[in-house]
Amino acid sequence: MLKIAIDAMGGDLGAAPIIDGTINALNEYNFHALLVGKSDIIKPVIPTSLQHRVTYIEADDVFDMHESATDVLKRRDSTIYKAVDLVREGSADAVVSAGHSGATMSLATLRIGRIKGVARPAIATLMPTTAKGVYSLVLDVGANVDCKAEHLFQFAVMGEAYAKNVMGIKKPKIGLLSNGEEASKGNEATKEAYTLMSKMSSFVGNVEGNNIFDASVNVLVCDGFVGNILLKTSEGVAESITNIIKTNVKHSPMAIAGAALMRKVFKILKQQVDYAEYGGAPLLGVKGCAIISHGKSNAKAIKNAISQAINFANSNANHTIEEELRKFEQ
Amino acid sequence: MLKIAIDAMGGDLGAAPIIDGTINALNEYNFHALLVGKSDIIKPVIPTSLQHRVTYIEADDVFDMHESATDVLKRRDSTIYKAVDLVREGSADAVVSAGHSGATMSLATLRIGRIKGVARPAIATLMPTTAKGVYSLVLDVGANVDCKAEHLFQFAVMGEAYAKNVMGIKKPKIGLLSNGEEASKGNEATKEAYTLMSKMSSFVGNVEGNNIFDASVNVLVCDGFVGNILLKTSEGVAESITNIIKTNVKHSPMAIAGAALMRKVFKILKQQVDYAEYGGAPLLGVKGCAIISHGKSNAKAIKNAISQAINFANSNANHTIEEELRKFEQ
Repeated sequence: MLKIAIDAMGGDLGAAPIIDGTINALNEYNFHALLVGKSDIIKPVIPTSLQHRVTYIEADDVFDMHESATDVLKRRDSTIYKAVDLVREGSADAVVSAGHSGATMSLATLRIGRIKGVARPAIATLMPTTAKGVYSLVLDVGANVDCKAEHLFQFAVMGEAYAKNVMGIKKPKIGLLSNGEEASKGNEATKEAYTLMSKMSSFVGNVEGNNIFDASVNVLVCDGFVGNILLKTSEGVAESITNIIKTNVKHSPMAIAGAALMRKVFKILKQQVDYAEYGGAPLLGVKGCAIISHGKSNAKAIKNAISQAINFANSNANHTIEEELRKFEQ
Repeated sequence: MLKIAIDAMGGDLGAAPIIDGTINALNEYNFHALLVGKSDIIKPVIPTSLQHRVTYIEADDVFDMHESATDVLKRRDSTIYKAVDLVREGSADAVVSAGHSGATMSLATLRIGRIKGVARPAIATLMPTTAKGVYSLVLDVGANVDCKAEHLFQFAVMGEAYAKNVMGIKKPKIGLLSNGEEASKGNEATKEAYTLMSKMSSFVGNVEGNNIFDASVNVLVCDGFVGNILLKTSEGVAESITNIIKTNVKHSPMAIAGAALMRKVFKILKQQVDYAEYGGAPLLGVKGCAIISHGKSNAKAIKNAISQAINFANSNANHTIEEELRKFEQ
């Protein structure tokens, strides 16, 4: 049975949503949970019927969101360190953490190690599109701020492998995020990456910011600086639109009635753009499976992150990444 | 009386919205219009009462959106070339063009020339915020893809001058767009730019993508590669949300009734995020005033772009840019 290590205390909202999410996942999927944290708090919350599918790993040091990522390497007793190390030792097949994402990234890269041929692991995130249930994978979204063309090329190979092996897309389309569709567009690094990526049969060329959401491509490649800004910008636009609607609805009884009649539509919208629906961002390029969840993850997000970890661990993605990189190196 | 040169034929939608917008502007503001295009088409459409406030400059070559920006320098008879050259000659105080933005940018930089001390002009765009009628200025949004720290610093100085002199903000707050708020965040260029910008009393530090829309800062600085991607991403999110709502409303008679009751709210939302409300992006750093309008500008967008051109030309912004750059150079 697949073993999933879960940092039970790393999130912004404490242990409760993580434990609830784990319970829901245990009820829905077939796996064994390795819960890392204070077992005197966690154990009593797990229903008796599930106890035989949970192992408790004692740790009471929580690595804070405001600490510097590299400091985590000295914090061997922290929940995040112990959770990642379970994958390193081979005691777990995957790790899920809603803790400090930079720390998870550092630990996974340095303790688990990189896949042969990978220069830099990348954080990939699923973004909602206008096509219901269809997500696009954007990477890197924060791990690597200054990227060379070779790094972007490797992100493309890793993204393609994840799209094929985990997302189940037979022939994924890979795009390079740029400031225009023409091959001549781009900055120095992306123009060089364009040439490198042209060797991939899945490469469709440069794509623009709006293509993230129109389901025209499955994987979008960018450096971590751009990736972070586009994530925050997207969140900002969605929040602003919601705020403007809410503020103005409040001022009119007619609009309040209208909003009530439209409740179902708003619910569908919320669901379609809700982060919790996909739950976490896979870290690609390490010799193991790590899912980085949002610090503010609710139980649903944790449950879906665990589901992602299971699919990732059951897949051939890491093997494919190694194979493909070797092929292109020749 | 202020003279505004207008490329009457450069937009994607032909001459009609540009001429309509000019007529509306003539009715509302006090200026003289220099309309560059086929006068046999344009002249008959201008009401007799406004004819004395319009000069017609003959040109029938339209520089196409798909041509390479640098080719425009050889197209001396194109509407865009002639319109920009009116500013160069001193015959116009400002130019408004909905034509090829790269071409307008090249012509303005090379024919009008840069302000002393400016290494690279930048395209600045106004972005809507959740605060009604409050816009933030983002630059650069497309002119310069690979930027050094000095360029980003100059964008900050230019953005501050525009915010003070044209937008009328007494103490504008300037932010540097980065992948986190901490001073340690950023790529090589932005980290160096952070140090340079720290000399400015208006600098508030690193800001993130969502801060574009929350009115927490007035000016956001980034390179043109990032700027283009964030613009397209914002448009993509807004369009996707609209599409999801529209598609799902269609399926339910109750939701259709709800949407009808909420019509006013949607109208306010549309108005608050509508590009046409501000009309154009000022090109900052040239020895003159150029407003670059969206290729798909409607009459309202053109009217508002002309209003912006008037405010810009009436302001002290370019003088302030030169003064401030000289001060920091010492």
